[in-house]
Amino acid sequence: MAIDQVLKAESVAIVGASKVETKRGFQAIRTLLDEKYEGRIFPVNPKEKNILGLKCYAKVSDIEEPVDMALITTPAKTLPSVLNDCGKKGVQGAVIIAGGFGEIGVEGKLLEQEVVKVARKNNIRLIGPNTSGMMNLTMNMNLVGLREAPKGDIGLLSQSGNMALTLITEAKLKSLNGFSYYIGVGNEADINFHEYLEFFQDDPNTRAILMYVEGMRDGRKFLQQAYKTTLQKPIVLLKSGRSATGKRSAGSHTGAMAGMSEVARSAFKRAGILVIENSDELYPVAETVARQPVIKNNRVAVLADGGGHATIAADLLTDLGVTIPELTPKTRESLRKILPSAAAVRNPVDVAGGTDADPTIFADCADILLKDANVGGLLIVGLFGGYGIRFAESLALMEEDAAHRMGKMVAKRNKPIVVHSLYSSAKPHSLHLLRYYGITVYDSLDVACKCIGSLAERGEYLKGYHAKTNFVFDWEARAKTEGREIIRKARAEGRNVLLEHEAKALLRLHGGESAGDRLARTEEEAAAIFQSIGGPVAMKIVSPDILHKSDAKGVQLNINSEAAVREAFTRILENGRVYSPDADIRGVLISPMADKGVEVIIGTKIDDQFGPVIMYGLGGILVEIMKDVAFRVLPISPNSAKTMIEETKSAPILDGVRGQPSADKRALKNTLLICSELIESYPDIQEMDLNPVIVHERGVSIVDARIILKPPSVKADAPT
Amino acid sequence: MAIDQVLKAESVAIVGASKVETKRGFQAIRTLLDEKYEGRIFPVNPKEKNILGLKCYAKVSDIEEPVDMALITTPAKTLPSVLNDCGKKGVQGAVIIAGGFGEIGVEGKLLEQEVVKVARKNNIRLIGPNTSGMMNLTMNMNLVGLREAPKGDIGLLSQSGNMALTLITEAKLKSLNGFSYYIGVGNEADINFHEYLEFFQDDPNTRAILMYVEGMRDGRKFLQQAYKTTLQKPIVLLKSGRSATGKRSAGSHTGAMAGMSEVARSAFKRAGILVIENSDELYPVAETVARQPVIKNNRVAVLADGGGHATIAADLLTDLGVTIPELTPKTRESLRKILPSAAAVRNPVDVAGGTDADPTIFADCADILLKDANVGGLLIVGLFGGYGIRFAESLALMEEDAAHRMGKMVAKRNKPIVVHSLYSSAKPHSLHLLRYYGITVYDSLDVACKCIGSLAERGEYLKGYHAKTNFVFDWEARAKTEGREIIRKARAEGRNVLLEHEAKALLRLHGGESAGDRLARTEEEAAAIFQSIGGPVAMKIVSPDILHKSDAKGVQLNINSEAAVREAFTRILENGRVYSPDADIRGVLISPMADKGVEVIIGTKIDDQFGPVIMYGLGGILVEIMKDVAFRVLPISPNSAKTMIEETKSAPILDGVRGQPSADKRALKNTLLICSELIESYPDIQEMDLNPVIVHERGVSIVDARIILKPPSVKADAPT
Repeated sequence: MAIDQVLKAESVAIVGASKVETKRGFQAIRTLLDEKYEGRIFPVNPKEKNILGLKCYAKVSDIEEPVDMALITTPAKTLPSVLNDCGKKGVQGAVIIAGGFGEIGVEGKLLEQEVVKVARKNNIRLIGPNTSGMMNLTMNMNLVGLREAPKGDIGLLSQSGNMALTLITEAKLKSLNGFSYYIGVGNEADINFHEYLEFFQDDPNTRAILMYVEGMRDGRKFLQQAYKTTLQKPIVLLKSGRSATGKRSAGSHTGAMAGMSEVARSAFKRAGILVIENSDELYPVAETVARQPVIKNNRVAVLADGGGHATIAADLLTDLGVTIPELTPKTRESLRKILPSAAAVRNPVDVAGGTDADPTIFADCADILLKDANVGGLLIVGLFGGYGIRFAESLALMEEDAAHRMGKMVAKRNKPIVVHSLYSSAKPHSLHLLRYYGITVYDSLDVACKCIGSLAERGEYLKGYHAKTNFVFDWEARAKTEGREIIRKARAEGRNVLLEHEAKALLRLHGGESAGDRLARTEEEAAAIFQSIGGPVAMKIVSPDILHKSDAKGVQLNINSEAAVREAFTRILENGRVYSPDADIRGVLISPMADKGVEVIIGTKIDDQFGPVIMYGLGGILVEIMKDVAFRVLPISPNSAKTMIEETKSAPILDGVRGQPSADKRALKNTLLICSELIESYPDIQEMDLNPVIVHERGVSIVDARIILKPPSVKADAPT
Repeated sequence: MAIDQVLKAESVAIVGASKVETKRGFQAIRTLLDEKYEGRIFPVNPKEKNILGLKCYAKVSDIEEPVDMALITTPAKTLPSVLNDCGKKGVQGAVIIAGGFGEIGVEGKLLEQEVVKVARKNNIRLIGPNTSGMMNLTMNMNLVGLREAPKGDIGLLSQSGNMALTLITEAKLKSLNGFSYYIGVGNEADINFHEYLEFFQDDPNTRAILMYVEGMRDGRKFLQQAYKTTLQKPIVLLKSGRSATGKRSAGSHTGAMAGMSEVARSAFKRAGILVIENSDELYPVAETVARQPVIKNNRVAVLADGGGHATIAADLLTDLGVTIPELTPKTRESLRKILPSAAAVRNPVDVAGGTDADPTIFADCADILLKDANVGGLLIVGLFGGYGIRFAESLALMEEDAAHRMGKMVAKRNKPIVVHSLYSSAKPHSLHLLRYYGITVYDSLDVACKCIGSLAERGEYLKGYHAKTNFVFDWEARAKTEGREIIRKARAEGRNVLLEHEAKALLRLHGGESAGDRLARTEEEAAAIFQSIGGPVAMKIVSPDILHKSDAKGVQLNINSEAAVREAFTRILENGRVYSPDADIRGVLISPMADKGVEVIIGTKIDDQFGPVIMYGLGGILVEIMKDVAFRVLPISPNSAKTMIEETKSAPILDGVRGQPSADKRALKNTLLICSELIESYPDIQEMDLNPVIVHERGVSIVDARIILKPPSVKADAPT
């Protein structure tokens, strides 16, 4: 059911309405009245007749008129009966304030499940529980109790009431923008993050979406939706709970599976989300991307009236990956004409006192800089807004003139200007004017840099948008009959593990390059296989009961004569029997020794929040000790496979170092894509481990492969 | 000459005094008068008789009374004559405002050198040039023109006038503290950073030193002084100019060698300096460490009135390396008694509404937490200060009560409290009270975390203080006659490079373990050496004219018979002659093949800002591709050698991975110390390169060693 009617409810019942001023059931009604909610309000409390001049009902089903939504402020245990009563009345949605659900442990989780069941039965969608409430500021529906929240075009989703309070307060104090909606997502028991995203995507009053997240119930669906939403509207997100203590804190807070892993970060970025690490930057970035044009070429000019700020800004922008381009000779010449000789007219531009007597020169410089095709956006740092305060009032009027001109420039050139001003908190009129035009102004240099950097990041995302990174599996579409048969056979034998030759056969079916391994069941077969290979071979024991072949002394390498192969065959079987007397030993896998090359590891697993993910890294100590790995949520596109390889720090090794030839990156990329295809084709697969894969000058060899299947019970509901 | 009299001048001449209101020479006098400077003011301008009611002199030497210092606002080219005139008068110091010196290129550098020469001749110490000025707020001497700077106990050193303005404005708006001095260090032409540090160390009005640095003239002396100063007073420093563009910007700004390298960062930290990356944190950290007790056990409790803030704080503190310890059962029980059942009484503590009706419970919680021996400091995050604003005025009075109690707690327990309050900018009286007691309050959660983290960092530094890390060389103290002789011989031959066997001999003299290499000059000698070694050997050509031995095919490994040694000897000499027909070939160095082990690289060089530094890393791709290296300014203590080894990401490899035995870290540490000793013993050495050193299960082998000497001209003034 669409959640539109819930979020735009035209009538609200307040269950647990009260006359006691400190109670939530009183404050909610008072706030709705004070803020002039456009809909109808129905207090519900069997003990009262009237509250704040409104008729009070004993129960929701007693209300004579239609009720769209209920704000339920009564304790957790009352929820099932209240919801049943709401259902009787045809209420479509409820905001559940009470805590005491999933966040407090097993007992709470059970109650939460029951509440959701009752709600579904009654066709009621739930916001929360354990939420501070919600606001629809476009119709003055404020169910939070926090008053005079500034209206604007940012949609706010938060899993912390205090973070929402922080952001709303910040908006009120430091900007001219504000919020279209605030939704306290709470425990996400029913309505999930992705449904709110979908709502905001279509909402004409929302231009940017701001999210504070501790944990997500369904990360996969969130990514699928975010990928669509960010094409139209920016999403700015901070996810806390990175650290062990942070996770513990988040767990006792929202009851959700928390943790900002590398997987999450890379997935969010691929979905076009602007990921924020520093909470001071959260609102400013949202405000900036809601209002300003994006930067189309990742190039920013810095205009300063002092060297220190320019130097720090250059460092910060460089850290953010933004280019600070050389200016064209024409631009430099134009600047030179209006600035004193001490000025620096390279980028960063330092006016060196050139604006002291006439701050309208800021606008002249901005005009010159934004005309330069090399410049995609402008960051002004320093004292603009303070000339009137520091020197003479007449300068304030010049600053206002400059503000008007710069405001129009942004619209005309469709390039953004972000301003850092030391005088922001003094609230001079010139800065108010800038904000009126949508130019964002901050008193923190770090924050201003992050804001202009985010416009560049969003510009780069939109420019490099890959339609294939949609996080959607086409389950089983490319599965092969022989592949299904391999899995069926293992299942039939009651196995959750494919044998090495089965795993390799499955990979080969989809184009995976593993040198022709063959299974020898007898010494004679082993000798024959060796003769047909005609060179040194590797021999490995095959048994569903022996997973760690080396531990069982079941591996021998570089065997290079028939006699040695025969001897090795016998010894491997013996070793296997010693290691595990009851093991079902199927024989010995014989393969040619792989040529030299670069060893890499590829693995897949199922992440609790995002479903199937893939990991890649160079083998040995680079993965084990240096943790130099790349993660992606599956499925991956060719472009993702390429960037995965490139983003590991050890990637240059593939290009050949210390006299080694370069490795075949195309074949490696292809192997990553084959893994992605396998996961998509066979939902039975729980986990794959290709270790090592040797990347040769031409082609790769999958030297060892392990595939683990889901327990049969899980399989059924895996595809989502 | 001591700079005390300059910084505490009791009389100031204003050279370039003016009646024009926009001129610096007018503003300076007006500010001194307005701010009630405690000393005498003498305007100097040949064209005026009186300025602002003060008698104006034609030149400084005309002034009848003593003049301690001159503020010179006239252009760069006037400086030599002005300084000569000041010298005549016996002026002890000058602040030079003008730019146009080292920061504008070669011509400016020459003028700067001339000005310094003139000043030295006249016994005048210089602040600047290219500075915004200086202030001694303890005697109302304000030579900057920025008015009403807040007085306090922070000494400010800045290479950017705008950053100083930023910090002063921030102090005024957001704290109760301020500055004892501000010194615009400018181009550091005469007085260097370390001299200012020395002054602040002894200054009773200064409790913390705040520095904004773009580049340093003498990093070594700065470290030597900082190491002493930080034992008594904290230094908080931000160094910009990390990025290429940042360096360019800094270069055109201060004319200094800029760049925040890894060397600088690790050296600053070793000297006990609190290094700041984010300019928003600069003043807050200085303010906090100026006033609050340090944390002695790196353990912080977090007290929150909302889950979101607690989660973010836990993440940030973890990133900063601070421990968020479990609370004792007794502490938890005490908290449980005064908080509602929904509260989290693990660390972070979340009061979960428990303070809504009575914010004095914050003080109760703080008292319980600070009593816990596991807790070294307290961070309060969220809404404290806003209860009176949000709910009822009576709560404001309770908050004030809590503030008084917490303020006294800090003094009583000698443990700090830092407060994050969303309501900081609303300036409630309770937060003013906290600040009065020295408890620091910030509206940014990130900043508050950094502040409490800095108290922990300083506590850990003082606890782990190593008297040997003083950055001072005891030049030549441990030099050996034979060592000097090796260098003398090379010099006598006109060489700047030691031959491999000379370098190894020098290392051996100081305990370096390189397996007995011996030089064979004839085939017979080679055969004899092989016989005496009695196992496989490595053979390398020895020639001052062939530095890249492999390129000359001058290296052969694993030679294991007398015949092969004879043949290799002949071939190596032939290859050498082919490679470089005129080369002076001294013979072939023969050494036993080194046992297996972990390959590492050790190098030393001379850094432009800090002098001799040492680099260490694991060999091969780990250094070349992964850039996994550690740097230290020399000399190093045993503790530094140990932490260098430990801080590389690849360090676990030394403990043995993939079935390899562990490597002898003690012998490796010893080798690093020997390199340090060599640099200290022989100031002739410019650069050392030990590559590779093989670290065995027991002992190390220095397989190859290269030592380059300074050009003879440089040698003389090397030791500092």
